[in-house]
Amino acid sequence: MSYDLWYWPGIQGRGEFVRLFMEAAGIPYRDRARQGDAQALVEDMEAREKSGAFAPYAPPYLVAKDGADEFAIAQAAHILAWLTDRHDLGSGDPQTDLHLIQLQLTITDVVAEAHDTHHPLGGGLYYEDQKHAAATRAKGFREDRIPKYFDHFEAALGVNPGAFFRADRFGHVDTSLFQLVEGLRYAFPRRMAELAADYPRICACRDEVAELPGIAAYLNSDRRIPFNEDGIFRHYPELDAP
Amino acid sequence: MSYDLWYWPGIQGRGEFVRLFMEAAGIPYRDRARQGDAQALVEDMEAREKSGAFAPYAPPYLVAKDGADEFAIAQAAHILAWLTDRHDLGSGDPQTDLHLIQLQLTITDVVAEAHDTHHPLGGGLYYEDQKHAAATRAKGFREDRIPKYFDHFEAALGVNPGAFFRADRFGHVDTSLFQLVEGLRYAFPRRMAELAADYPRICACRDEVAELPGIAAYLNSDRRIPFNEDGIFRHYPELDAP
Repeated sequence: MSYDLWYWPGIQGRGEFVRLFMEAAGIPYRDRARQGDAQALVEDMEAREKSGAFAPYAPPYLVAKDGADEFAIAQAAHILAWLTDRHDLGSGDPQTDLHLIQLQLTITDVVAEAHDTHHPLGGGLYYEDQKHAAATRAKGFREDRIPKYFDHFEAALGVNPGAFFRADRFGHVDTSLFQLVEGLRYAFPRRMAELAADYPRICACRDEVAELPGIAAYLNSDRRIPFNEDGIFRHYPELDAP
Repeated sequence: MSYDLWYWPGIQGRGEFVRLFMEAAGIPYRDRARQGDAQALVEDMEAREKSGAFAPYAPPYLVAKDGADEFAIAQAAHILAWLTDRHDLGSGDPQTDLHLIQLQLTITDVVAEAHDTHHPLGGGLYYEDQKHAAATRAKGFREDRIPKYFDHFEAALGVNPGAFFRADRFGHVDTSLFQLVEGLRYAFPRRMAELAADYPRICACRDEVAELPGIAAYLNSDRRIPFNEDGIFRHYPELDAP
């Protein structure tokens, strides 16, 4: 049995949420985004859409191969829930696992909003052509949306003892929260510095995830490509707090 | 065992995706959005966030009560997957059920984009204060995003024979696709009329869902409140095709 992870090359993007969990859990995978160009991804997606079987709408998607059998699953939160189930990495309590998927889907929502801070008028237009709109959208995101989401994650981290959402060990929500914090710190460093003191549990969770052996090794490798201005989290100083 | 569905009163919103599936499947529930005001919802949410247990970030959420036990689950796609599992309404094939959840999450994405056509600069601002930005965002949504998503749903409907995504009967993706089509037809009637001929399977699925006994009864009841300009799908003629 083997995994191929497909995503756009050159950016962390939504693929990074899948990568981080697999790295933390020690699940081997072949990272097709780091072994090919965008054309290879486009061709793979087109072939799947024309195959007559259910296909991904967009990357990231994970292809599990077991001999001649192949199963492709898309949507980052869905992939993470599925990997957790398949590798017996759940909490042991079904209701807790459902709540953690719910939290993962809430991270999906805030990630989409983070993207829209620099592309409020649409992904088909350049940032330079929507800078004024982006400034307005980013202000609301910085001032209202980040605190609203973070209040929720901070409360959820208080449900169980320890740094993670679960009492026993890290799960997919912890690695995704790490990535959300890293991305927001990259995109909005001044605003995130202002907020740090208000969210000690979120900061502690981020720090504990960074020290997981699989994550520490990954972050120190060349597999972790830097954030950049082609991805979801972009640092445009004019969109950060004054 | 009983269900309470919590959502904002006065709109269909994301709660409607849960409602439609429960109505189609004949699962009884108490609709708290139709029995109280927004303040009741806000108070319920605040109490849950302060309870020390995992809480919803936002409505819709469904509260399942079994004697003294209570379990609350949020995120429309997550609620639908959970109800499907709990009421044994799956296809019988785990991979198909996973693909259907993936499709439901893709519907979640397009619904968020539909919302942002009228609020691209942020939900905290009035539509009147972002009409120009909305016109730009809506153009890209109408011309590029709807066809891209619809191409995908049309292909997915071709995987199995019959009008539904599954070969055997309707599932949660069918009722959600119905609502997506209804909402888009309300918001963008001219554009949707242009596109109808290109998507025969989507139109057929919508029509078959409308004729499901539970859906037909619901649509004819006063429980189905009309679309309006407070919801996700809003008809602003200036955002529709010329």
